[in-house]
Amino acid sequence: MITDYRNVTLRGGFWKSKEDLNRDVTINAVYDRFYESGRIDAFKCEWKEGDPKQPHFFWDSDVAKWMEGAAYILKRERIEDLEQKVEALIDEIEKNQDECGYFNIYFTVVKPEARFTNRDWHELYCAGHLMEAACAYYEATGRDRFLKIMEKYADYIAKRFMIEDSANFVTPGHEEIELALYKMYKTTGEQRFLDLCAFFLNTRGTRNEKDSPIGGVQKYAQSHLPIREQFEAAGHSVRATYLYSGMADLALETNDTTLAKACYALFDDIVNKKMYVTGGIGSTHIGEAFTIGYDLPNDRAYTETCASIGMIFFANRMFALDAMLNGVPSSKYADIAELELYNGALSGLSLDGECFFYENPLEIYLPDRGRVPPYFNIHDHLPITQRVRIFGCSCCPPNINRLLSSLGNYFYGYDEEKNVVYINQFGDSEFVSGDVRVEQKTNYPNNGHIAITSNVPVYVRIPGWCRRFMATKKYEKINGYARFEAGEIDVEFDMTQVMLTSSVNVHKNIGRAAVRRGPVIYCAEAVDNDGDVHSLYLDRRTLNDGVAVLNDKYGVPTITFNGFRRVDSIDRDISPLYGVLDNIVGEDFKPTKISMIPYFAFANRGESNMLVFMNYR
Amino acid sequence: MITDYRNVTLRGGFWKSKEDLNRDVTINAVYDRFYESGRIDAFKCEWKEGDPKQPHFFWDSDVAKWMEGAAYILKRERIEDLEQKVEALIDEIEKNQDECGYFNIYFTVVKPEARFTNRDWHELYCAGHLMEAACAYYEATGRDRFLKIMEKYADYIAKRFMIEDSANFVTPGHEEIELALYKMYKTTGEQRFLDLCAFFLNTRGTRNEKDSPIGGVQKYAQSHLPIREQFEAAGHSVRATYLYSGMADLALETNDTTLAKACYALFDDIVNKKMYVTGGIGSTHIGEAFTIGYDLPNDRAYTETCASIGMIFFANRMFALDAMLNGVPSSKYADIAELELYNGALSGLSLDGECFFYENPLEIYLPDRGRVPPYFNIHDHLPITQRVRIFGCSCCPPNINRLLSSLGNYFYGYDEEKNVVYINQFGDSEFVSGDVRVEQKTNYPNNGHIAITSNVPVYVRIPGWCRRFMATKKYEKINGYARFEAGEIDVEFDMTQVMLTSSVNVHKNIGRAAVRRGPVIYCAEAVDNDGDVHSLYLDRRTLNDGVAVLNDKYGVPTITFNGFRRVDSIDRDISPLYGVLDNIVGEDFKPTKISMIPYFAFANRGESNMLVFMNYR
Repeated sequence: MITDYRNVTLRGGFWKSKEDLNRDVTINAVYDRFYESGRIDAFKCEWKEGDPKQPHFFWDSDVAKWMEGAAYILKRERIEDLEQKVEALIDEIEKNQDECGYFNIYFTVVKPEARFTNRDWHELYCAGHLMEAACAYYEATGRDRFLKIMEKYADYIAKRFMIEDSANFVTPGHEEIELALYKMYKTTGEQRFLDLCAFFLNTRGTRNEKDSPIGGVQKYAQSHLPIREQFEAAGHSVRATYLYSGMADLALETNDTTLAKACYALFDDIVNKKMYVTGGIGSTHIGEAFTIGYDLPNDRAYTETCASIGMIFFANRMFALDAMLNGVPSSKYADIAELELYNGALSGLSLDGECFFYENPLEIYLPDRGRVPPYFNIHDHLPITQRVRIFGCSCCPPNINRLLSSLGNYFYGYDEEKNVVYINQFGDSEFVSGDVRVEQKTNYPNNGHIAITSNVPVYVRIPGWCRRFMATKKYEKINGYARFEAGEIDVEFDMTQVMLTSSVNVHKNIGRAAVRRGPVIYCAEAVDNDGDVHSLYLDRRTLNDGVAVLNDKYGVPTITFNGFRRVDSIDRDISPLYGVLDNIVGEDFKPTKISMIPYFAFANRGESNMLVFMNYR
Repeated sequence: MITDYRNVTLRGGFWKSKEDLNRDVTINAVYDRFYESGRIDAFKCEWKEGDPKQPHFFWDSDVAKWMEGAAYILKRERIEDLEQKVEALIDEIEKNQDECGYFNIYFTVVKPEARFTNRDWHELYCAGHLMEAACAYYEATGRDRFLKIMEKYADYIAKRFMIEDSANFVTPGHEEIELALYKMYKTTGEQRFLDLCAFFLNTRGTRNEKDSPIGGVQKYAQSHLPIREQFEAAGHSVRATYLYSGMADLALETNDTTLAKACYALFDDIVNKKMYVTGGIGSTHIGEAFTIGYDLPNDRAYTETCASIGMIFFANRMFALDAMLNGVPSSKYADIAELELYNGALSGLSLDGECFFYENPLEIYLPDRGRVPPYFNIHDHLPITQRVRIFGCSCCPPNINRLLSSLGNYFYGYDEEKNVVYINQFGDSEFVSGDVRVEQKTNYPNNGHIAITSNVPVYVRIPGWCRRFMATKKYEKINGYARFEAGEIDVEFDMTQVMLTSSVNVHKNIGRAAVRRGPVIYCAEAVDNDGDVHSLYLDRRTLNDGVAVLNDKYGVPTITFNGFRRVDSIDRDISPLYGVLDNIVGEDFKPTKISMIPYFAFANRGESNMLVFMNYR
């Protein structure tokens, strides 16, 4: 199965505008922030004790992800300034690579004596991101200088870890190199990179290696079990999705059904028990981690942008793996990729393309901030309420860069053997591979109509959220896809908004509902609702009467509902905090309009209380 | 106004049973745990470096509160064993008191060089509790040995703090000595103790004294402002209520209306904005502190037992202060004392009298415990779910001892000048002072009927929660009290349960309601409700049909309601976690019975999920 942005051209509509925003604004914004913070110059490896801007051990990875994102842009169009920036960085990497092949800024200028001594100091994670960037840049430009550098580094890593076993640890604390080595293998065709990828994956959780000082719990880094015995998503959620993506790569490449079984179980465990309605995953800031099933607090949701992006990577690999194993894959993998794209991942970026969320809460109640001073240095952790230009740990912004410049990866899947194309994501676009050509004309997700032209049979995903699907041609429904013969096909998804309730297992959401229209989850912000959203009630009886009006700023409609506002018109006795409720529904509910915007667009107009799960009657 | 347990005899009913339980079980249970933990023997001051059971700097106060509780029991009846235990402790205190008057175990055997060096090391707090115990023991036995010891210590404290200013700090980090010195003054008649009390109060917040290492924030110890400028309850909630009690004492004694104004504001700020429906106060474990108004999370409620007891102290003093300033006091002070007695304070004690809660949450959801491993040593703090026999910081158990042996303090108030008696709390009991005699015959709070006999005019509190009050004699309603002439009077309070909703400002409680019957707040435990309480809905239309049946174990009824259980009968699409809600109320609510027990009795039958604020329709 080929899922490759290089075969896809976005021509207009929602995601094209995001692709352009990334090219015109975000890719430069991230570079500029990285320059200002010292991350770019750090590649010169000239930092000395006492200098400002001491490099951090994860800085290489931040910039590498940016380089990867830039490479995907450069594949589509030559932007000289962007190319020069990447080349300048490669110059420095080339110059400062150790003779043995090693490259890492921090462990060259700050702690050279500590190379490969600590499992959690992100060296292999940084190496992995540099490898991904090198592959991307080679594919974009055809120039292999960067790729050769990283091949040499990969060989040195193989020597130290796999051949000599001479490092102080066996597998990385932060996964990433696994999927990167698979990319190296796919890009170069060199079996040795697949071997090293398999070595790191297969060794994980099988040796009694001591964890890092900052970890301390094997589960945190998914090292509590061998990978084929991991069926429950656990620990740091970004590490987890990168690991699971690498596992799916290896299972696909080696047709390893035992490993695939773990991948299936992990994917389902996340989706069925540990995923917010926005697709956000990793519900606690403590360890940036998965917790137990159904533990999905809204206001304290951690739901890192990178974790949603990682989930897109994992879902796309599961699509390919499931296709190999089952002929026609389940549409749920593309469903989840869509959910993450429109919601959990996209909310990480401001509408102007300059600012970022690391955490993506599903509720903001501003007074909670500063509710308690930090007595004894115990802080009450709550997500920030406005996107910022850069973080100290700024992994998410360049992850958005590389996601938005490679969106085509998720739109189409080409099964070469059967010569059929899967349409996984919808948008005005074209897929071309050799003689095969598939085209979508659509305003999706503003409306649900898509005109498809294809010269091979196509499998059109019928979205899991779609309650009514119409088509002008006859089709066969297989595993959530509608299979059409080649030709011109019009399909239409009913986009009417619905109210989503959570399973009662998510007890904090009982009595509350979220609004979804098509793939987009909505939220209510106080700025649109007379300053208070927490006292609003959606009305389940009139939900279908909601008025959706396209908002160009968002690219999708805002929606206005008839609902209620709960007011204190009840008797008070001992304290005005509490009042006796009459046994007749009285004046405590006042009819009101409720205005909702897409969740991904929250917090773009200053600080405001916000709710995804709202009370309903 | 005299409010003194010595004038009151409890003869039967709810609180008499608790008084007896304390005498027969709890006072011994606390002593035994204190003996086992080394707290009793610590008074020998023989601990040496390397010995086990190193004394903590707050141990004196734990045992002092126990001694005070024992003294109140001894005033009513001679229990030789109990008296010997107190005497033995006094022997050690006498033996180990410094020549200068100083006494503190920790700063005698562990850190003698550090006396009066650190504001937050609880020396004056311990001294205060010993003074309260000494006053109580003198009043119980007429023997003044302990009182003299503490007079000498108080004089030494006056010398070091007030006269010489030779300590490393000016006012205590943990308040308590202020109200204790007022007791010393009332017990001995010595003006110098009132002067020292006034010194500590009036100096607080006026000097730029550095806080302790563990404090760090002036507000934490109510030192951010002079006391007459404090209008918002802040910081550690037990410290706060002890301070505010001392402030009310001083305002009463000196007729200080400026100080009284602060007391009124602080009381109202707590009751109107920072108090749980159970009376619990101090909503965060971070600093065991008050937070901002309306911040009352149920599952993470800290609501220390000691804070509810402190609030009873404060409320009772406000009753006396308000009486002095306004002739007839507002009934709200006795309302709050009642709320705390039946709920926030009493929940601190197990039904068998042996075990204790320090924190008193309003919701337990067991899976939340251990939802996330302690990555990076960041713990997810949630209250424990079962009462225990002792705590490392075991302030609450002996606070229950002294509360339950001095309940009479809260039942009656005698205005000597006007020769009238206030009936503040209800229960089968008698008040006698000289010729004045007031009697209540009642099964309250099992039912709402009270037969009163009085040979002076009485003010009977009409509870703030009472929606229908009946009396057999005519009365005048003043400030929430019904004033009757002397004679025989039957009154009756309607005890029908009601549903209480929170102000919409407590946004987390919107859509939820608590049940109250008379003064008692109810809760639902999973053990009575098919294993799950979070999916239950109370029915506002049928609430009055609830069936209340007296349960002897609790001394008040349990109640069974007709309600609903929310079930997942809805469409699921992308994830079984979320489903589309129909716009017609369908099969998602199943009729069910809901069983509720008094909140104070929760967690007496093993671990169980529990809810005070339940969903309702």
